[in-house]
Amino acid sequence: MLKLTHGGVTAAKGFRAYGINAKIREGKTKNDLALIVSDTECSAAGLFTTNKVKAAPVLLDIETVRNGKARAIIANSGNANACAEADYENALRMQKAAAEALGIAQDQVLVGSTGVIGMKLNIEAIEKGLPKLVDLLTSDDIGSAEAAKAIMTTDTVMKEQAVICEINGKEVTIGGISKGSGMIHPNMGTMLCYITTDCAIDSVTLKKVLKEVCDCTFNRISVDGDTSTNDSLIILANGMADNEPVAEGSEAYQVFREALLKLCTDLARRMAADGEGAKHLITCRVAGCESEEKAVTLGKSVIGSSLTKAAVFGCDANWGRVICALGYSGCDFDPLKVDIAFAGGGESITVCTGGKGLAFDEEKALAILKNNEVIIDVNMNEGDAEATCWGCDLTYDYVKINGDYRT
Amino acid sequence: MLKLTHGGVTAAKGFRAYGINAKIREGKTKNDLALIVSDTECSAAGLFTTNKVKAAPVLLDIETVRNGKARAIIANSGNANACAEADYENALRMQKAAAEALGIAQDQVLVGSTGVIGMKLNIEAIEKGLPKLVDLLTSDDIGSAEAAKAIMTTDTVMKEQAVICEINGKEVTIGGISKGSGMIHPNMGTMLCYITTDCAIDSVTLKKVLKEVCDCTFNRISVDGDTSTNDSLIILANGMADNEPVAEGSEAYQVFREALLKLCTDLARRMAADGEGAKHLITCRVAGCESEEKAVTLGKSVIGSSLTKAAVFGCDANWGRVICALGYSGCDFDPLKVDIAFAGGGESITVCTGGKGLAFDEEKALAILKNNEVIIDVNMNEGDAEATCWGCDLTYDYVKINGDYRT
Repeated sequence: MLKLTHGGVTAAKGFRAYGINAKIREGKTKNDLALIVSDTECSAAGLFTTNKVKAAPVLLDIETVRNGKARAIIANSGNANACAEADYENALRMQKAAAEALGIAQDQVLVGSTGVIGMKLNIEAIEKGLPKLVDLLTSDDIGSAEAAKAIMTTDTVMKEQAVICEINGKEVTIGGISKGSGMIHPNMGTMLCYITTDCAIDSVTLKKVLKEVCDCTFNRISVDGDTSTNDSLIILANGMADNEPVAEGSEAYQVFREALLKLCTDLARRMAADGEGAKHLITCRVAGCESEEKAVTLGKSVIGSSLTKAAVFGCDANWGRVICALGYSGCDFDPLKVDIAFAGGGESITVCTGGKGLAFDEEKALAILKNNEVIIDVNMNEGDAEATCWGCDLTYDYVKINGDYRT
Repeated sequence: MLKLTHGGVTAAKGFRAYGINAKIREGKTKNDLALIVSDTECSAAGLFTTNKVKAAPVLLDIETVRNGKARAIIANSGNANACAEADYENALRMQKAAAEALGIAQDQVLVGSTGVIGMKLNIEAIEKGLPKLVDLLTSDDIGSAEAAKAIMTTDTVMKEQAVICEINGKEVTIGGISKGSGMIHPNMGTMLCYITTDCAIDSVTLKKVLKEVCDCTFNRISVDGDTSTNDSLIILANGMADNEPVAEGSEAYQVFREALLKLCTDLARRMAADGEGAKHLITCRVAGCESEEKAVTLGKSVIGSSLTKAAVFGCDANWGRVICALGYSGCDFDPLKVDIAFAGGGESITVCTGGKGLAFDEEKALAILKNNEVIIDVNMNEGDAEATCWGCDLTYDYVKINGDYRT
């Protein structure tokens, strides 16, 4: 039993959330401060950016999550709190303000920020807004939705999802919110993604399953090849589903892993589809590889190719750019074994077999490339391993959005 | 004595060239077939793409250049002759047709192609055009110019240059033509670049100096991170300057190396500045590094960052994207030592010291970023090594050009 449900981070038992406009940046009217809190202490695990330049909230969370316990997440948009005056002090102040407003210990609070790098955070606005935010916390769907809106930057759609599975006869819920858009090329973590669950599971097992799932989902998407300073993927598990604690290697572990994989795949796909300026979700399925690792490297090279991305924007079946991107991936392979097809809207067209171009129906290719999701199917014909990666097209709007982001 | 001169590939003694429209693609009016030939046999050396998928002319040239001797280069635009039906056979036919028209041995001819991948080459048009092209060969400047035009694809300006140096009291000339524009992220070679010289130098020494110079010039530029299937950098040296042959480790070697470096730096900068859709040349100077290799890795990460490129397009001094790109370069460093400044038009403005943002004069920054060449000065403050890399901004026109390149 694995099914989708509504409610995002408030879908699981015992979680409340909300988001407000705390006026962190003058003149902005969207929500910019999100709070998620559990009624009881949670097992906590997090994965963070591998960027050598880490934002202050990331550095603080890496410390905080070490004890494997937490109850709340406070996060803002509009400012990355990275490479800025007093950045670490302000991350601490943010953590402290949330703890005081909630009446819990400071080391039970995780902190996140997203937005422009290098500008001093308006911490006073956050401190001022927190009591009001705590008053508004709710376990209703609206709580998750307002929180999801508060972490958006250039995202055009809110991203939340929840799934229900059954573990030892108990219904276990997992839900999450995320934001993506630009500077998306996650490596070990991703742009902000917060997941809550009522599953009983210890923090070591939780971290293990989170890492496994992240490697197959958020670590397989790219919008622009830029790995952010603020990537954070955090999960809180409060045990209120009352299941027997999930143990590594058990059947329950597999069930929980499948449910989390479903949730994270869904959120990762939405992040890729809503990449800055994107008009198409690009799904690259690489089959027939010697290893899954190689399939991922090849797939990420394709979804990261500016030329392939621009071709999909123009609905141009320019598969030469796909085989070129496979070629510079760093992987060794025989070019004369490669097959390539484009698929979308239930149709498929093969454009290259054995590394050589085929004459193909351009009208049919155009119809396929006009779908919102364009699938690039690659077969290396050298083994049985496969992997799927997700990206988006490169559009005028990406350039427009990023030509003047700070103002 | 090192000075610039005119004449490109026909500047050195004993070289003739020309380019024509051989009608390789229906309805196109630009030159598409270039021929360069030396009056006498040359030492020859070449560097080629590291892309695993290599175009047929690259595979053929790798074989041909092995004996270190050649006399001519035949090259077409409009079709990459890669991953296409009969690609290798057509590369051989192109080599043979040029040899017959010139009355020289087939293994004295190097072959190059650039354009769309995966479409069958119109070899008949090339075979038909060659006798006419041979008739037009000239050692005048116009010969190099017409050849330079014939290898252009989406380039907006023709790229040619020549330099004169003195070796053992003899005047030695080196000249080249190149084309770049898109799919530019050379590794070991670059998009088509052909260099001729009248220097006396054996092919082993020639290859060594070419590699050294390529590593500091063409291997330090990027337009879009896409390493092409057709990258080729070839040099022909016919010895007609009558200097004593240049020996490795000699003073003459250094003089020749400096002259070639000057030529290649100039051509590489022009290729970056004329990247597809580019409005700005971006020069990233990374100083204060532990090693030159590290400085190159850091600099290439900055010039390859889509977000940095889009910010420069928008004249936005968004240095947070620069430090972010340094951070995901894969290099280890202390973020709290990094200084960043923008420079251009003789002005400079420091925007980050010790890894933290400074309040800076936005008007002055805007004025600097409006220059055609924007310099990003990074100091890692950890050593004495430095390197310069070149790229260009990411613009609407890049997306436009690449959204529909095949038609």
